[in-house]
Amino acid sequence: MLIALFPGDGIGPEIVAQAKRVLDALAIPGIRYEEGLVGGAAYKAVGHPLPPETLELAKRADAILFGAVGDPDCDSLERHLRPEQAILGLRKELGLFSNLRPAKVFPELADASALKQEVASAIDLLIVRETNGDVYFGEKGMRRTPEGLREGYDIMSYNEEQVRRIAHQGFQAARARRGKLCSVDKANVLETSQLWRDVVIEVSADYPDVALSHMYVDNAAMQLVRNPGQFDVIVTGNLFGDILSDQASMCVGSIGMLASATLNDSNQGLYEPIHGSAPDIAGQGKANPLATVLSAGMMLRYSLNLPEQADRIEAAVAKALADGARSFDLGGTMNTVEMGDAVLAAL
Amino acid sequence: MLIALFPGDGIGPEIVAQAKRVLDALAIPGIRYEEGLVGGAAYKAVGHPLPPETLELAKRADAILFGAVGDPDCDSLERHLRPEQAILGLRKELGLFSNLRPAKVFPELADASALKQEVASAIDLLIVRETNGDVYFGEKGMRRTPEGLREGYDIMSYNEEQVRRIAHQGFQAARARRGKLCSVDKANVLETSQLWRDVVIEVSADYPDVALSHMYVDNAAMQLVRNPGQFDVIVTGNLFGDILSDQASMCVGSIGMLASATLNDSNQGLYEPIHGSAPDIAGQGKANPLATVLSAGMMLRYSLNLPEQADRIEAAVAKALADGARSFDLGGTMNTVEMGDAVLAAL
Ligand SMILES: CC(C)[C@H](C(=O)O)[C@@H](O)C(=O)O
Ligand SMILES: CC(C)[C@H](C(=O)O)[C@@H](O)C(=O)O
Repeated sequence: MLIALFPGDGIGPEIVAQAKRVLDALAIPGIRYEEGLVGGAAYKAVGHPLPPETLELAKRADAILFGAVGDPDCDSLERHLRPEQAILGLRKELGLFSNLRPAKVFPELADASALKQEVASAIDLLIVRETNGDVYFGEKGMRRTPEGLREGYDIMSYNEEQVRRIAHQGFQAARARRGKLCSVDKANVLETSQLWRDVVIEVSADYPDVALSHMYVDNAAMQLVRNPGQFDVIVTGNLFGDILSDQASMCVGSIGMLASATLNDSNQGLYEPIHGSAPDIAGQGKANPLATVLSAGMMLRYSLNLPEQADRIEAAVAKALADGARSFDLGGTMNTVEMGDAVLAAL
Repeated sequence: MLIALFPGDGIGPEIVAQAKRVLDALAIPGIRYEEGLVGGAAYKAVGHPLPPETLELAKRADAILFGAVGDPDCDSLERHLRPEQAILGLRKELGLFSNLRPAKVFPELADASALKQEVASAIDLLIVRETNGDVYFGEKGMRRTPEGLREGYDIMSYNEEQVRRIAHQGFQAARARRGKLCSVDKANVLETSQLWRDVVIEVSADYPDVALSHMYVDNAAMQLVRNPGQFDVIVTGNLFGDILSDQASMCVGSIGMLASATLNDSNQGLYEPIHGSAPDIAGQGKANPLATVLSAGMMLRYSLNLPEQADRIEAAVAKALADGARSFDLGGTMNTVEMGDAVLAAL
């Protein structure tokens, strides 16, 4: 089993290093690692955020453990050379369309949320975000209007096949959880959303046991603050999923705790914390590695089919928190390596 | 001075009636009212959500006091006949491009928010949302892919002129407040956002006294939960503004409290609560009319140039709350008319 390690930019190398220590401690037979360059780090080294060797490694690997990309030094580069193109390129080239972002409060951290404790502690939801389509990947560019004005444009679209396959992911996830699926769109304004809604309704015929509801994205953003405990699984498109999952992560308390998986049709997956590269704290040992450790756990569960080992990682993280391990984002003083130590001690 | 009253659907008529009572109590000389049909109510009566007589009245009026549109009976109509087309059509036809959505906690309601009291009570922000462009008004439709699949599409775009005029609104609003402007976009993915950011930076040269920052929309959704007190004025596009302003409203406690104004170049304006038509509680006297009353206040301030009268309305709402007036959404038992009575008593 080959794992590609892509640390990337900013705090990426620090947090991936801790997740690797935890994986090493599990001593899983037959697992091997190869490291690749992505993001601003790759651009600086070889002139491209997703070099061909990296892409080739990603395709060969059973799973990718990803840190983060994003580097302010690269802000003025042409779009196709920016760090973010690494993650967008990997999602596209490997067909990684199903982005799973669970949000659940660890009881020890319920008071870290800006939400009232009784509101925050009810959160146990999963956002299933489509990551191969939408306005992210449509034709886009700069052009001139007939009057000669500069105009930026991006085409948003989904076809029925794209919606159908992510809808199935959403329904299946709901079936494995509490049986509730909320599809989020903006069908009162967007034709893309209207097709989305039509197809989700068609697919629902296969899942009579799942309770399906629909919500406009503006209302969903509101409900995620008002009463996030009402949600089980949310299925939505690439752009709305980007916004709502970051919002949900903060409802949970710290974005430093949230893991994600992005799967393709053959369960090959990319695993990453949902936070970014945090250039402001890079290299200072302040980053919380737990989201990356938990992402490694998701990797064992979804791509390597090692559920017991995944459970061990999750239990170790919970125990480390229960034992009082707190990084800066959680109101504590432990550095990145000490947080790794705490998980290892709990293992 | 002519005010067009457009009650619309659901709770619209009930809440507009209370705002009208408050306006009447001010006995403003020279003000007159004409009522028009919009939304599902207009469709049911005359077959179109924005009939020509309504549009004509809107154009003649100095200001529009709007209730809400949206009616589940109309969900399966063709898009151009749905209730939402009334508000979209008015924004477009009258050039109402600058949507101002203030969010501030009334001290009496700080504990109504799902956010911790210390987080919620720091909120005092204004969202300046562009409402004449973006993916709302681009070409859109259903088509077939080359393989024959159904596909929905919507073109997102902004030109420099559209961005420039809303950027000026944002900077001017910031100058009149605490001097901080945060422009929200998704420039790491969208060309529309890249143009947005470029033009906002160009415009900033005229406002050296305003501190400008930029934030990606996913991060903004997160920060609005984590620490909404950090924001003064947020300027953003139509779609992101839709999502973030609803989210911000819930951070404040109840969407039943938030007013909005949408202005064009000649200060003609449409004034509406930011909540919707709430068909589930329509006709039951459960709706909170305060957002509409406060919208009437904004109307006096921005379109009728009657700041003292606007202050009177705002003070009366604050006093009614201080005196204990609470509708259902605020945890109380007062009905819509009783809430109106409370404001009148406080006037
Ligand atoms: C870095 C950026 C392109 C990316 C996205 O918008 O998808 C990130 O925000 C995410 O959510 O993974
Ligand atoms: C009703 C709908 C079309 C509208 C919008 O999305 O603009 C509403 O949500 C709003 O925010 O005014």
